Amino acid sequence: MFAGICIGKDRPAYLQISDHIKKLISSGALQSNQKLPSSRELCKLLNICRNTVIAAYEKLAEEGLVYILGNKGVFVADIHTAGMESWNIEWAKRVSNQAQMAERLDLMKHGITAEKEMISFTSIMPDESLFDMENVKKAFLYRMQLEGEKILNYGYAKGYRPLSQYLLRYMESKGASLDGKDILITNGFTEGFDITLSALTERGSTIVCENPTHNTAIKIMKLHGLKIAGVRMEADGLDLNELEKLSAGSDACLAYLVPSYHNPTGIVMSPEKRIKALEILKRYGIPVVEDGFNEELRYAASHISPLIACSGRGNSVIYIGSFSKILFPGMRVGWILADESLIGFMESVKRSRSIHTSTLDQAILYQYLQDGNFEKYIKRARKTYSEKFNLALDCSRTFIPHRKISGEGGLHIFIELEKHLNARNVLRECMNRKVAFTPGDIFFTDNTGKNTLRLGFSRVSSEDIVKGIKIIGSVIRAMEVSQ
Amino acid sequence: MFAGICIGKDRPAYLQISDHIKKLISSGALQSNQKLPSSRELCKLLNICRNTVIAAYEKLAEEGLVYILGNKGVFVADIHTAGMESWNIEWAKRVSNQAQMAERLDLMKHGITAEKEMISFTSIMPDESLFDMENVKKAFLYRMQLEGEKILNYGYAKGYRPLSQYLLRYMESKGASLDGKDILITNGFTEGFDITLSALTERGSTIVCENPTHNTAIKIMKLHGLKIAGVRMEADGLDLNELEKLSAGSDACLAYLVPSYHNPTGIVMSPEKRIKALEILKRYGIPVVEDGFNEELRYAASHISPLIACSGRGNSVIYIGSFSKILFPGMRVGWILADESLIGFMESVKRSRSIHTSTLDQAILYQYLQDGNFEKYIKRARKTYSEKFNLALDCSRTFIPHRKISGEGGLHIFIELEKHLNARNVLRECMNRKVAFTPGDIFFTDNTGKNTLRLGFSRVSSEDIVKGIKIIGSVIRAMEVSQ
Repeated sequence: MFAGICIGKDRPAYLQISDHIKKLISSGALQSNQKLPSSRELCKLLNICRNTVIAAYEKLAEEGLVYILGNKGVFVADIHTAGMESWNIEWAKRVSNQAQMAERLDLMKHGITAEKEMISFTSIMPDESLFDMENVKKAFLYRMQLEGEKILNYGYAKGYRPLSQYLLRYMESKGASLDGKDILITNGFTEGFDITLSALTERGSTIVCENPTHNTAIKIMKLHGLKIAGVRMEADGLDLNELEKLSAGSDACLAYLVPSYHNPTGIVMSPEKRIKALEILKRYGIPVVEDGFNEELRYAASHISPLIACSGRGNSVIYIGSFSKILFPGMRVGWILADESLIGFMESVKRSRSIHTSTLDQAILYQYLQDGNFEKYIKRARKTYSEKFNLALDCSRTFIPHRKISGEGGLHIFIELEKHLNARNVLRECMNRKVAFTPGDIFFTDNTGKNTLRLGFSRVSSEDIVKGIKIIGSVIRAMEVSQ
Repeated sequence: MFAGICIGKDRPAYLQISDHIKKLISSGALQSNQKLPSSRELCKLLNICRNTVIAAYEKLAEEGLVYILGNKGVFVADIHTAGMESWNIEWAKRVSNQAQMAERLDLMKHGITAEKEMISFTSIMPDESLFDMENVKKAFLYRMQLEGEKILNYGYAKGYRPLSQYLLRYMESKGASLDGKDILITNGFTEGFDITLSALTERGSTIVCENPTHNTAIKIMKLHGLKIAGVRMEADGLDLNELEKLSAGSDACLAYLVPSYHNPTGIVMSPEKRIKALEILKRYGIPVVEDGFNEELRYAASHISPLIACSGRGNSVIYIGSFSKILFPGMRVGWILADESLIGFMESVKRSRSIHTSTLDQAILYQYLQDGNFEKYIKRARKTYSEKFNLALDCSRTFIPHRKISGEGGLHIFIELEKHLNARNVLRECMNRKVAFTPGDIFFTDNTGKNTLRLGFSRVSSEDIVKGIKIIGSVIRAMEVSQ
């Protein structure tokens, strides 16, 4: 029983011994008032220093698990380990509709899983080899030295103040008016969008969005019980006639838009369209949630103002931003810029959900940004990703028979195949040939898009981009011939 | 316009210049195609090195905000800054019932706010001077060196594997059977409880809990639209007769219990009662959510098994734990140990809410725990807090006229005054005399507890504990005399 204690190197030995004995006691293998081996015996048995055993026994005594009787020895305390008769619940029958739906819509469980040896275009995660570890370390050490105790204790639901201030300036430099606005820091875009919908929708309300659109956003909208009114996309963004028709015909309470490097199409909405879309939505009293998705990953073309800048001194646009899409997804930090009274309500919702976002992460991110590292990183990232982007675009145009290919930036391109082709059939055949991609139908709000696919290239080598796209192309050509 | 650029030391100068010019462009202060000062002029004007100005202009050019015409100079690009006519929404009229309720129940907004010079017993935050910064630094640097890229990129909704494994062992050493169980890492207790209620309740269902109980839990239960059935507390925990009556009379779907160092009463449920309570709940088909609140802050008495250990090999108890209550609240890390099929559903809910908890925080916490630092910290923290606890208890018994004082550990004690006294009136008078505490009514589920109060002592010096409690006592005595 004691000889079985195996002492590894990655944790203090006295804790390994006390953990082991604790387990023996709580499992009932050691009985109340049973005498434990003396420290002399145990240290010999385990071939360790006697002080280690003494420290382990002292720790157990502190926790009330053993008692020490002068020089009589160490005994197991009178522990109540007797439990109730065991009761096993069939949980799947008890979970809420909400949880069942979350499970059903969970693409990590029911989506495409590429095996390791495959060339996989399913991911739009950043390539971690671009990460700038040294400056993250520096930012951490500097912040810890400056105010370590503070950033390890409770912070504020609204966010870590230096970071909020930085982000306000950052949004101002994008042209947003800060008058009467405020910022809420969130656990990335996902929590930001979830809080926004909690704060502004009731079950059964309608939300307008692009069709196709970001699949995580679709999932969250469905989980909030919203009716989704998807607006067709043209080459320069929303089809304004359809936007007008849908806005007039519904009592939508919100519009969710991704104006730049739209996921999945990669389309950038033109400046003229931005203004026109906002004017249409204003006419029907529909405020906008703007997803600033990958706005920084612009490879060419000129600057375009985000919707929140286009809305001038008005307060009808709620901007959700996140550095975690390209910078450090492992730290979950995003933000919402919106009218200050609205942020007040959202702050209370945030507090009821997760109290606040990790102050440590916010402090590291702030220092990293303040030191000017983001600009250097983004320059390097843009170079790498734009090369891959151009390669993927060229190869797709050359090798994949298509109706349309779209994408002006970001970490993916979007392909529309001939109408009669089903991308899931193409995928099945491609996976036999060790290539995976994301079937585009998951991005559509109306069960269409069967003939579309998204290629994420951020984590695929140049060589594999060429090889993989050639295989996709040849599978499609073979299917066209066989039909 | 340019002379106004003020260059500080805390951010690279070229970024301060480009930020400033960006703001001038996006606000419309600089017009499209307007010529900017030459780098030679600007560096003279600002008294900085010319390369800095050149770097700033290059950055603006990269972002498409200016264009450089050979040696003719630098010009503002053709930016669409024209916006829509501004539209101002009265957001308070548009927010959801959920958000209004979250705001109404937000104690950070409507609770007691002690001014700086007051002696405040309102907080149960840990005392940050006890924090062990050096070992946090070590844990960070070690983890970054080992797998920095990995912990900065996306992780898994269930959690960072080494931490999950550590916590499984930790729970096993508390006596929990791990058969058929799994762990989900959450953003602290708050998110864990929110996810649990989302996964297991529908609006309008009933939940059983102690009365009084943790006020954040009451808030979250209300936000989930639950009916709350509060069970009276006795000196050793739940009144079992009332538990039986309430369980029989309701179709409760869940019970929320804080068996150790219960908030706010500080009561530890006796081992016998734990088993009996579980058996009653089993009889009525009600599973338990166990809040492991401050379980580590035991100052005396022997070890008592958590409910999840008492439930043996059954799966009816869902344990929510958190190190952030005493260790590092700034990192938001908690966990749920429960049946593995249930954790599967909760994992999908978590993914839809915040994708995953900061991997960086989880990695730091894991290394810190694995190195055995928690045990050293808790030893130090117990010593400090138990001294304050005993002092606060002694002073309260001596100076405050009371019906009952409870508390066996943790960071607070709970006081029941004579029935005719209202703690809010006492508080008003105390605040005039620069002492604040938490009125106990906020912890009650049935609008009672007007004559109770909670004293949190974790952040009050010994001197102020004595002084503050004496003042509370004298205020109460004065009120009794005047009546």
